Amino acid sequence: MALTLSERVLAISPSVTLAIDAQAKKLRQEGMDVIGFGAGEPDFCTPEYINDAGKFAIDAGITRYTPVAGTLDLRERICEKLHRDNGVEYTPAEVMVSNGAKQVLFTALSTLLNPGDEVLIPTPGWLSYTEMVKMAGGVPVTVHGDEESDFVVTADMLRPHVTEKTKALILNTPSNPNGCVYSYDQLKDIADLAVELGFYIVSDEIYEKLIYDDCKHYCIASYGEEIKKQAIVVNGVSKSYAMTGWRIGYAAGPKEIIQAMTSFQSHASSNANSIAQYAAATALSCGDKYIKSMITEYDVRRKLMHRLLNEIDGLSARLPKGAFYIMMNITAILGKKYRGQMINNSTQFAEILLREKRVAVVPALAFGDDRYVRLSYATSRANIVEGMRRIAAFVDELEEY
Amino acid sequence: MALTLSERVLAISPSVTLAIDAQAKKLRQEGMDVIGFGAGEPDFCTPEYINDAGKFAIDAGITRYTPVAGTLDLRERICEKLHRDNGVEYTPAEVMVSNGAKQVLFTALSTLLNPGDEVLIPTPGWLSYTEMVKMAGGVPVTVHGDEESDFVVTADMLRPHVTEKTKALILNTPSNPNGCVYSYDQLKDIADLAVELGFYIVSDEIYEKLIYDDCKHYCIASYGEEIKKQAIVVNGVSKSYAMTGWRIGYAAGPKEIIQAMTSFQSHASSNANSIAQYAAATALSCGDKYIKSMITEYDVRRKLMHRLLNEIDGLSARLPKGAFYIMMNITAILGKKYRGQMINNSTQFAEILLREKRVAVVPALAFGDDRYVRLSYATSRANIVEGMRRIAAFVDELEEY
Repeated sequence: MALTLSERVLAISPSVTLAIDAQAKKLRQEGMDVIGFGAGEPDFCTPEYINDAGKFAIDAGITRYTPVAGTLDLRERICEKLHRDNGVEYTPAEVMVSNGAKQVLFTALSTLLNPGDEVLIPTPGWLSYTEMVKMAGGVPVTVHGDEESDFVVTADMLRPHVTEKTKALILNTPSNPNGCVYSYDQLKDIADLAVELGFYIVSDEIYEKLIYDDCKHYCIASYGEEIKKQAIVVNGVSKSYAMTGWRIGYAAGPKEIIQAMTSFQSHASSNANSIAQYAAATALSCGDKYIKSMITEYDVRRKLMHRLLNEIDGLSARLPKGAFYIMMNITAILGKKYRGQMINNSTQFAEILLREKRVAVVPALAFGDDRYVRLSYATSRANIVEGMRRIAAFVDELEEY
Repeated sequence: MALTLSERVLAISPSVTLAIDAQAKKLRQEGMDVIGFGAGEPDFCTPEYINDAGKFAIDAGITRYTPVAGTLDLRERICEKLHRDNGVEYTPAEVMVSNGAKQVLFTALSTLLNPGDEVLIPTPGWLSYTEMVKMAGGVPVTVHGDEESDFVVTADMLRPHVTEKTKALILNTPSNPNGCVYSYDQLKDIADLAVELGFYIVSDEIYEKLIYDDCKHYCIASYGEEIKKQAIVVNGVSKSYAMTGWRIGYAAGPKEIIQAMTSFQSHASSNANSIAQYAAATALSCGDKYIKSMITEYDVRRKLMHRLLNEIDGLSARLPKGAFYIMMNITAILGKKYRGQMINNSTQFAEILLREKRVAVVPALAFGDDRYVRLSYATSRANIVEGMRRIAAFVDELEEY
């Protein structure tokens, strides 16, 4: 037959985040001094006690296959964490570990969806959600949140989009890219809606620990036994413990779903790295001591970037409550020109800014809203000051069309 | 809608290998002395120089995201390895690294197949191949090899199974579970057939280094430019370097296929563990020195197990040429009883042997032939002697029905 490829895979949107990242790296290799506001990972190093655990695992010969769902020890630590931090009770048989939370999400959606099943996705939302749903044969149904309401998509906003084919909602609080944090009541209403109308909630809680002011994170599975039966809680150690490269994410959910996910994973990849599993168990069992100093620093950077940004005429942003991203509103400068180059959308803004001022940002077109770009403040205060200075100069040099 | 799960995932066959393994572990936990012939992994430890590289990576802060396809350094080492060992030329853009060769295979099949596409699978073959093809929406078409011909499935045997819908062949040499190694000419004929009739070859070469006597491994992509355009070469460091828990596998193939696979992986899991990538690059750059002593030991065990097995009346096996498995023919004892329990197939043989004599083996039903069980000799000589003694006693105690 013809040597073609999978149509479903050819339809995958290339990651804009990665494209911008590649361009920024290329400029750096050419000796340019690029300020990176694109990164989706902590700039902190993995804490020493976790590194030590990783090295111990290597010395102890913990370098063999583990159970597909992860070591019992790690799954027990995850259950303890879910009890301690989230007030939900799970057993190790209700937990599966993968090569990062991204793989957990892909596996969960592959396990839930039949062809044509619809999945609700609040936007602006993380770009991989829609692609994962399509790769699993489902249909993404986006529901847009407004900046005025901190981008929160409420149960009332979701309800009109629920159909006979709605299989799941992907919830993400705190949110990448918009930094919103759903309140206790907002989540309760969504939990009630899911139980009333019968759909699953895949709850991506990877930014749980990165939360500021008096905000509090609530786990969707903690709203009672009914919603717990319909919830798959997704989390990991990447963002909280600065362990992105270790690749450890996990899901907790009803036993039959976790079993089906594990069955999928048994043929799709097998277990995650054994050394990283050991290190992650150590990370979780030592609680939040190290995390607190990171949060304090992120909080300073959040306020610094937010203040500098709002001082720029033509740009604005709300103060986000969680994660380490700011959604910068560029509506007021769309239609202007920079040295003859038109800026009509977020992609053009990001491309020209990177080329002319060497600041890397992510166009929010990728997240479902072309009027914003996403800035990450997971970088030093000095970089934030210099990067915002360059953005201010860039905007200052814009000409009316 | 109804809270159902994906029909495709519910149709996945649970892994018999894992079920036997779980039973063996349970018996061990109860204090039983179980001999394990089920393992699919080396019993050697990861070599010290590779462990050192892993620990260095942790200390050096190589604990962040890497490119989705793997670090440039590792992909360069892989290209060097493919040139040095296999005589094929690839560039880093034609290489992708995943969380183990299993994930590489799943990603390759997901990237190649459209719904209904057929994939040829020689049997007895590794149990995950058929499941992966189904998970990717394809139709597995098994082609059976005979013990008399060392289980090799030739181009002539494949030809009648090629249809308009044949998209790919999964080749596995040396083979798990049957240990066959395809000759230069056998592979050439298969390469010619693929070019003539137009289908891809996904070539799983993970056991490449585990090869005995005067046998030689040939890489399917080395048979010329035409077949190279239709070949995806899959390999990894797990079996050769005793690095199963580190989870590093890779694919080399045409750039557009590798790009599509990387696009899939960018949303399905992102990069493999960064520390393991560094360690794998070190493993590959230091060549085969350490491997040789392992092969020498495997060879002794292979001959030992083969001799002891053929001394047992009613059991037989050919001497395998590669990997670390022996296919034990149990045809002559099917239909007999052990203490009143009928043995009609490979699963019953394995279950009763484990329960009564505490020897774990894998029923070859899982691999597509119920007249065999698979024994792994990736265990000590002492274990092989004791395990074969128990199997001999077991067979001796069988009664005619």
